[in-house]
This record gives sequence, structure tokens and C-alpha cells, in this order.
Amino acid sequence: MWRFLGDHQTVEGILRDKDLAKLGDSLVNLCYSLAKSQIIGKPTGEKVRDKVLARAIRETPIYDKYSRRTDAGRAADAYEAAIAYLWLKEKVTIEKIVGSLVTNMTNEIDVSRRHENEISSQAFQRLLEELIHLLPR
Amino acid sequence: MWRFLGDHQTVEGILRDKDLAKLGDSLVNLCYSLAKSQIIGKPTGEKVRDKVLARAIRETPIYDKYSRRTDAGRAADAYEAAIAYLWLKEKVTIEKIVGSLVTNMTNEIDVSRRHENEISSQAFQRLLEELIHLLPR
Repeated sequence: MWRFLGDHQTVEGILRDKDLAKLGDSLVNLCYSLAKSQIIGKPTGEKVRDKVLARAIRETPIYDKYSRRTDAGRAADAYEAAIAYLWLKEKVTIEKIVGSLVTNMTNEIDVSRRHENEISSQAFQRLLEELIHLLPR
Repeated sequence: MWRFLGDHQTVEGILRDKDLAKLGDSLVNLCYSLAKSQIIGKPTGEKVRDKVLARAIRETPIYDKYSRRTDAGRAADAYEAAIAYLWLKEKVTIEKIVGSLVTNMTNEIDVSRRHENEISSQAFQRLLEELIHLLPR
């Protein structure tokens, strides 16, 4: 179906694919928007901040394969590329991603922006942890 | 599945739903990014400009039900809300949307930004024309 997806043999290759990260940015924003819509009970649109995704990926074992010394933008790109790869390869659906985020977020999301970022980061971390085994080694 | 989607009885109600438009913004950007990735043969991320969607919806009969005197931002919102509604209601899939956009865009997309906007507008217009019968009256 998605003939543009290159042939990635390793997880490092996926995490460093900046083109894949661009596509992953749209995908992650849509999934987060859907998750937040489910939680607040009405449709909404949200952009996920780099620092939220950076913090999420840095807490997972996958990040050791990338580098421990990257800025938040690059770390977020790596997260977005991983999710894009898994979705394009049909290893995960949007419904599954959203379901995981909703489960791991709570109604506390409205309390404060800082609190929301923490909750979102943890939800994105858990999502990636659930999916890591589906990436190449 | 998407319990947050309100009960829309009319197409006017959908087109004027600003919350739905926010979600539709993410969805339209993802679909356009996927279509452009297919065309150029590598993953990419793109944001669709308001004027592209505004021009597309203004060329369709649906727009008469909305208003002929709105700015590009509001017209684009109406487009985004319509696509979000159709996707959330499972009347169309992302694969179908992308397939339609790819069919109606061409490799000429790289020629110039202005040309690209025209081609994209026409592709979004045709997509909506294909889907109009799936909206409430």
C-alpha cells in the first residue's frame, strides 16, 4: 500500500529517518487529538510538543540505540518516525494507538498545562513500550 | 468507537462545527502528507493551506448550504469538518482519501508552489465531490 516506505533493516535506521519523522508528526498529532477528544467528550485538535515526545522516548530502552545526547527536537523526531513506521507497516492501527493513549491518560488532563504534559509523556512512553517488540532489532 | 462525535442531523451543522474542524485539520494534513509521499516516493509531512481547502469547497454544491461570504479560514474549517465527520462515521477510510488525492494530483506537483496549490485544490474538490452523497442532507 505505502510504496514510499523505504526498506529499514534496523531500528536505528528508522529512528534517524527525518522524512519518516515528518509524516509521523501528522500521525501523532491526529492520534493525540483523537485521544483528547475521547477524554473531553468533544472533538478537538492538538499538536504534541517536542518535549512531550522527547521525554517519552528517553524513558524507553529504544533510546539507547539512538543516542543519549540529542536535543528535544531530534528525540521527538525519533519518536514520530517509530510510530509512523509501525503504522505504515500495519503493525498498529490508529484505533489501537488512541486506545492506549486514552487508557493511560486521565480526566486530570484539564488541571494544568504542565500536568497535562507529564500525563501525556507517560502515555506516549507506555504506548511505545507496548509497541517496541514490533520494531526490527 | 468515537463516542465524542455529536449527533449531526444536517450538513449545515457539520460544516459549522468548529470543534470538528480542529480534528479535521490533523486528519487532512495526514492524508495530504501521505498522498504527497506516495507521489514523490518518500515520506514527507505537509500542512494544507486554508486557501487550498477554501477554494476546493467553494467549487462544490455543498458550499451553497453554508454561506457564500466567508473568509478562507472559515471555508477551510468547513471542509475539514466535513472530512472529519465522514472519517469518524467510517463512511470513508484514510486509504480511500489518499487514493483519491493521489489519482487527482500529478507529478507536476514539484513545478511550482502556485501550481501545486491549484493541483491540490482540484484534488480536494474532487475528493469532496466523491463523498458529498455520504453526508446528511
